[in-house]
Amino acid sequence: MTTLDARQQILAANQAAAQELRQRFVAQGTYVVNLISSPGSGKTTLLATLARKLGRRQRCAVVVGDIATELDADRLRAAGMPAHQIVTGGSCHLDARMVAGALDVARFGMLDLLLIENVGNLVCPANYDLGEHCKMVLLSVTEGADKPFKYPGIFSKADIAVLTKWDLRNVVPFDERAVVQQIQALRPGGRILRASSITDEGIDELCTLLEQRVGACKAAAQR
Amino acid sequence: MTTLDARQQILAANQAAAQELRQRFVAQGTYVVNLISSPGSGKTTLLATLARKLGRRQRCAVVVGDIATELDADRLRAAGMPAHQIVTGGSCHLDARMVAGALDVARFGMLDLLLIENVGNLVCPANYDLGEHCKMVLLSVTEGADKPFKYPGIFSKADIAVLTKWDLRNVVPFDERAVVQQIQALRPGGRILRASSITDEGIDELCTLLEQRVGACKAAAQR
Repeated sequence: MTTLDARQQILAANQAAAQELRQRFVAQGTYVVNLISSPGSGKTTLLATLARKLGRRQRCAVVVGDIATELDADRLRAAGMPAHQIVTGGSCHLDARMVAGALDVARFGMLDLLLIENVGNLVCPANYDLGEHCKMVLLSVTEGADKPFKYPGIFSKADIAVLTKWDLRNVVPFDERAVVQQIQALRPGGRILRASSITDEGIDELCTLLEQRVGACKAAAQR
Repeated sequence: MTTLDARQQILAANQAAAQELRQRFVAQGTYVVNLISSPGSGKTTLLATLARKLGRRQRCAVVVGDIATELDADRLRAAGMPAHQIVTGGSCHLDARMVAGALDVARFGMLDLLLIENVGNLVCPANYDLGEHCKMVLLSVTEGADKPFKYPGIFSKADIAVLTKWDLRNVVPFDERAVVQQIQALRPGGRILRASSITDEGIDELCTLLEQRVGACKAAAQR
């Protein structure tokens, strides 16, 4: 068996597990978002902010992946968000079986919105379907404006791109126009939001977007 | 063949290629650094700064890896650093064969210092030996203070850790003491530097450290 064969088998097995998850999410009317970004782009901070805003109106929970430590789940639970930590023990991405296993253990009950915080990595997680409705990529303004074209995999697959740490946009060199042009070229029609968990800028817009999708998902399940 | 077998075979083949590279570097007296960090931590900016400072005194070159685009090599050549781009076409890390192939094509001539800028990824590159003398991990202060324990692989293997974007340390929440404690726990005796390519803080210290190692490498080759 070649390396390529092994890789194709791994991805095919993941796809089958993801398809099972997706059917379950669709039948239950649970909208699922797969959050992907570099380490330190602000995934957990954004989720803690969403917990505070959305958590009162929607039944939300988070599954969070890290190579080591349970820090993120602890932070999210402290913010009032039901959270389950997957420690991948070295693996650079979540896969669908890990998520299915986590949901079996976590027993969140019926959810309107499940947020999956992937391992901090802009590369490998893009290739693993988790049965989600949508991938959301985060790019902090401190990471520089050349990233979408350097990491085209995730920026072409993510239906929502959030430019995070927006409060720092004037503190660091950041070419907003260049970033927006690259994202639009890679994902025509995708949504681009600007958000700061410090100033709350953009958070209401993100909540509104997610709640619209939660509503549509629920309506589809009831038909 | 299981996935684990396939992975072990890939790593074993890489180790053999890395060992060949290492013998060549040692014999030539070329000191080699493998730079690893998240996307946007400032690898290319730091290298451009080193080009300006070190490039006058040492024969330096860069091999730079990206999934897509030749942007980084272009930037480095503009800064006066001989540079060769490896476009990995999706692969999330450099491996030793890619580096060997790049050196064959680049024909840099005799070098005192070869800097290898890995793909922006704090996870996978840590597992692939490139024949380097030392791994250098970059962590920007904007990424937050919890990262070493969340990415123990690279922080335990890197002999030098550089806290980058040091000029922003008072603009963002950053717990220097916590970061230093984590790095020291993972890599006792490793060097920790603070650097800003904007203010030049810490750059001379890094240059001095690298030049000491270049000198020791050259002396060993001449014995």
